[in-house]
Amino acid sequence: MITRLSNYFLKTLREDPADAEVMSHKLLVRAGYIRRQAPGVFGWMPLGLKVKGKLEQIIREEMLAAGAHEVHFPGLLPREPYEATGRWEEYGDALFRLKDRHGADYLLAPTHEEAFTLMVKDIVTSYKDLPLALFQIQDKYRDEARPRAGLLRGREFTMKDAYTFDATDAGLDAAYQKQRDAYERIFTRLGLEYVIVSADAGAMGGSRSEEFLLPTPIGEDTFVRSAGGYAANVEAYVTPAPEALPIEDQPAPAELDPAVTPTIETLVDHLNSEMPREDGRTWTAADTLKNIVLAVTPVGGEREIVVVAIPGDRDVDMKRAEVAFPGCEVEPATAADLEKNPLLVRGYIGPGIAGAAVLGLEGSTGLRYLLDPRIVPGTSWVTGANKELTHVANLVAGRDFAGDGTADIANVRDGDPAPDGSGPIETARGMEIGHVFQLGRKYAEALGLKVLDENGKLVTVTMGSYGIGVTRIMAILAELHHDDRGLIWPAAVAPFNVHVVATGKDPVVYEVAEPLVAQLDAAGIEVLFDDRPKVSPGVKFGDAELLGVPRVVVVGRDAAEGFVEVWDRAAGTKDRVAIADVPALLGV
Amino acid sequence: MITRLSNYFLKTLREDPADAEVMSHKLLVRAGYIRRQAPGVFGWMPLGLKVKGKLEQIIREEMLAAGAHEVHFPGLLPREPYEATGRWEEYGDALFRLKDRHGADYLLAPTHEEAFTLMVKDIVTSYKDLPLALFQIQDKYRDEARPRAGLLRGREFTMKDAYTFDATDAGLDAAYQKQRDAYERIFTRLGLEYVIVSADAGAMGGSRSEEFLLPTPIGEDTFVRSAGGYAANVEAYVTPAPEALPIEDQPAPAELDPAVTPTIETLVDHLNSEMPREDGRTWTAADTLKNIVLAVTPVGGEREIVVVAIPGDRDVDMKRAEVAFPGCEVEPATAADLEKNPLLVRGYIGPGIAGAAVLGLEGSTGLRYLLDPRIVPGTSWVTGANKELTHVANLVAGRDFAGDGTADIANVRDGDPAPDGSGPIETARGMEIGHVFQLGRKYAEALGLKVLDENGKLVTVTMGSYGIGVTRIMAILAELHHDDRGLIWPAAVAPFNVHVVATGKDPVVYEVAEPLVAQLDAAGIEVLFDDRPKVSPGVKFGDAELLGVPRVVVVGRDAAEGFVEVWDRAAGTKDRVAIADVPALLGV
Repeated sequence: MITRLSNYFLKTLREDPADAEVMSHKLLVRAGYIRRQAPGVFGWMPLGLKVKGKLEQIIREEMLAAGAHEVHFPGLLPREPYEATGRWEEYGDALFRLKDRHGADYLLAPTHEEAFTLMVKDIVTSYKDLPLALFQIQDKYRDEARPRAGLLRGREFTMKDAYTFDATDAGLDAAYQKQRDAYERIFTRLGLEYVIVSADAGAMGGSRSEEFLLPTPIGEDTFVRSAGGYAANVEAYVTPAPEALPIEDQPAPAELDPAVTPTIETLVDHLNSEMPREDGRTWTAADTLKNIVLAVTPVGGEREIVVVAIPGDRDVDMKRAEVAFPGCEVEPATAADLEKNPLLVRGYIGPGIAGAAVLGLEGSTGLRYLLDPRIVPGTSWVTGANKELTHVANLVAGRDFAGDGTADIANVRDGDPAPDGSGPIETARGMEIGHVFQLGRKYAEALGLKVLDENGKLVTVTMGSYGIGVTRIMAILAELHHDDRGLIWPAAVAPFNVHVVATGKDPVVYEVAEPLVAQLDAAGIEVLFDDRPKVSPGVKFGDAELLGVPRVVVVGRDAAEGFVEVWDRAAGTKDRVAIADVPALLGV
Repeated sequence: MITRLSNYFLKTLREDPADAEVMSHKLLVRAGYIRRQAPGVFGWMPLGLKVKGKLEQIIREEMLAAGAHEVHFPGLLPREPYEATGRWEEYGDALFRLKDRHGADYLLAPTHEEAFTLMVKDIVTSYKDLPLALFQIQDKYRDEARPRAGLLRGREFTMKDAYTFDATDAGLDAAYQKQRDAYERIFTRLGLEYVIVSADAGAMGGSRSEEFLLPTPIGEDTFVRSAGGYAANVEAYVTPAPEALPIEDQPAPAELDPAVTPTIETLVDHLNSEMPREDGRTWTAADTLKNIVLAVTPVGGEREIVVVAIPGDRDVDMKRAEVAFPGCEVEPATAADLEKNPLLVRGYIGPGIAGAAVLGLEGSTGLRYLLDPRIVPGTSWVTGANKELTHVANLVAGRDFAGDGTADIANVRDGDPAPDGSGPIETARGMEIGHVFQLGRKYAEALGLKVLDENGKLVTVTMGSYGIGVTRIMAILAELHHDDRGLIWPAAVAPFNVHVVATGKDPVVYEVAEPLVAQLDAAGIEVLFDDRPKVSPGVKFGDAELLGVPRVVVVGRDAAEGFVEVWDRAAGTKDRVAIADVPALLGV
């Protein structure tokens, strides 16, 4: 069927919509793909629906090829299963909750682990029914606080979510690998560059978790990678512990002159001028310790004040801090928290208050004192002396102080070592385009999904969860594929294969365009035909550039002589082509 | 791709689910098409999703063929537009309402008139942009009080809803006809018999409205039809008013002896024995008047007590009463209502209290007194005399009493006249399978959708709304197409074209079945292949009958001799067929 612009539900806009901040949002609205219904909630016009459908079909094909069965779950789900897994509470304000007329609690599902687990529990009884992989392409809901990035992060959005079910850990590993391979194929088909990074499983629980990140300077996520092949989300980067150093013969702790050290910079200057080291090394901020006071609150649990020591040349990365305390909310301690612990001297906190007493200090806060992984026995530090205006140097871990454990909360920098020994890392920005999780037995345990194993014994099923944000990917493709005139879709998801523009007042233009369009259509080419009789060439060209069909055929002035102009929007070329050659050029 | 039952997400059940009351619900759950997630909310297994997808595709094709453009709107919508049209309130408890994290009101859309109107307002500016027809296939929500009929009436359900936009009434008529024609094609393709009946527009407002009803004794709706072609929903049946009769020479009103007339039956007996009519006609209940007291409450308005006179041989049809008072809630008056109007003598209410005073009665209730359309001038009635135990005969309309208007609330019966003069009607039961409405300008008015007309003047757009419940149609097809062994899908929506069952332990069975299945698959036939090695023939046959693929090919005992058994489930035949003939038999 030929789609004619003279009769199409489309309106292009010259101006960016007022509420749009990112390019994909601006262009998809201006080019008539989507329209805002509410913050983060969009209606789909015919062009948008076509692109979304092609994207979904690519994902569907690869899921089916990976042996997953397609199912479909409702958006509206009852509270109880989410209560059983704890997610009813954990999701906090991001979950849309509602009541039915009888007062029963419901939610608009953000993901469907619970529903899939329960359906599989209803169907599967034996290890022989496994492995099982299921997926759906379905609309999900998350009540984002500030949904301002268009389709990149909406409140109603389409996702492909897949779930695997296995009786054994080895089965889960195989299922995970299959999905991971399918994701690689999907992103390859979409022409999306990706880096697979280790990721923290976060609120989803579970063991192995990787993100597919598209490397781009405009990405919201930071990840790290080494030339040797290591890649991880910054949250998942594990600081390798260096070798312990000998403790013997290290200088004794020395309290520094008060009042000279208001900042780490002045402290380091003071040390270099007044206490030059025997081995000639300069003192730097990396020789100092910052003692960070955090408030850590497990879901449904009590707020705990914790002190974490990190090298003075680093800052706390709060996202990494959340990972270091799984399932907890982590925030900087407040002034009130510090007041309740008078032994913590603000700006001069050191080891020995929490943890084993050193330096003859009396009393203890009773708080946990955790160490950055770099603070191994034998490392020597300059830090607070737990009294006003006073620092101490030559404080040696394992001799003068110890911790109650480690906490890897410091920020990550270019040049830090990859934990697998594959060389220094560099940080880069990326956008999440997919996520694969080994959920393990968390959901199956909570909801009682067990099967009989080979020995007739009931075992809990182990699960994986795999997600691609369909509408998000569409936005990302729009972010990647445009110029200052409009969208330029990759062929795999373009709403049409070719956009034929008939321009000018000469009737011959239409006499030439119509049979060409009919010929292309008959050959299975999806044609968008700009046949609008009273629209100026300038407006038609502008629309063709804005809409983003990758090939444009302009039937104009030279039509009478048998020539058209063929644009390759991605290449930026415009070629004069004999009409007879057009079908072949378009792959007919 | 060949679908193998040895690796398919399916489990059939021998027992009906406990909460299922209708056949379609029982069979679709037992055969593994759907699973309950919450009351009236279902999850879709692969088989169910396939049938639903085919149904959607048929509807989509006919919508596109009718020139409608496909769009897609969110399920989650903001309150404001529904507030503007009054539907936020009108929908009552049937609307799922919720708040976002900022406290803003949202709803889960039951239909999308508002959203479509606003999108079109955003796109369309001139009559030249019209006519416009849009549709979507999308999940909707209604919080049914007792969702007990499976997919027939769920709380989350898939609908095709279409909307048309025109500048003129003639345009709306044409658009309506186009959609109506498309509906006829859709139901014809689905093999669904239908009667198009006039329907009340009800809460949707507007002028012309028709329902497509499937005639079936198990239908929830009653409709009426004449041999001459008239058909209407019972709610939409308009009682034709008979000719007025001469008033002169009619006997004077006569009060009847008290205490002989406790019921209409005793009243009629009394009249026939004590007051035989001069023309010899027998008195019947149709000569008496019932005076019905109703409480009528407009949305957001005040409760009004109204008296309606209907022939004594009829009862009030409360659904027709709701139509007679558009936009109002109608209920029988309560004892308290009657107490507040002491002039209404329960059981003996007559004309003259409300309306013009007759019979020398003093006082008036001040209530509206409305007449059944059959009560035309010159008709004579026996009715209450507005005092205890007393009736009056020979009360002539237009002489002794008059009404403040008509109200067509009496029940409809076989033999009543069709309002178009096409003969007597008969009542029948039906199931609604589609609905087409002329909405008129209600929504466009409320939301300010105007276009410039040919004279450059702003005119309000007139709209139509057209709905088919996709999941409901699937349930109806299941209701119609089954036997006591299971489902028997019509070919157009069957999940597979053929179900090949390999049975028995002889390896030759699989040696024969595999190439046959591969051949059919290669020819584009969708094959479900029961290749389960350890399942008994009985279970396989039972599953084949339950699942409902219309053609079953059993590869068993005779396979070695080159023969299979081909079942035509709808015809109930099982034929021995040479394997070589199977592809041709299946249309290859």
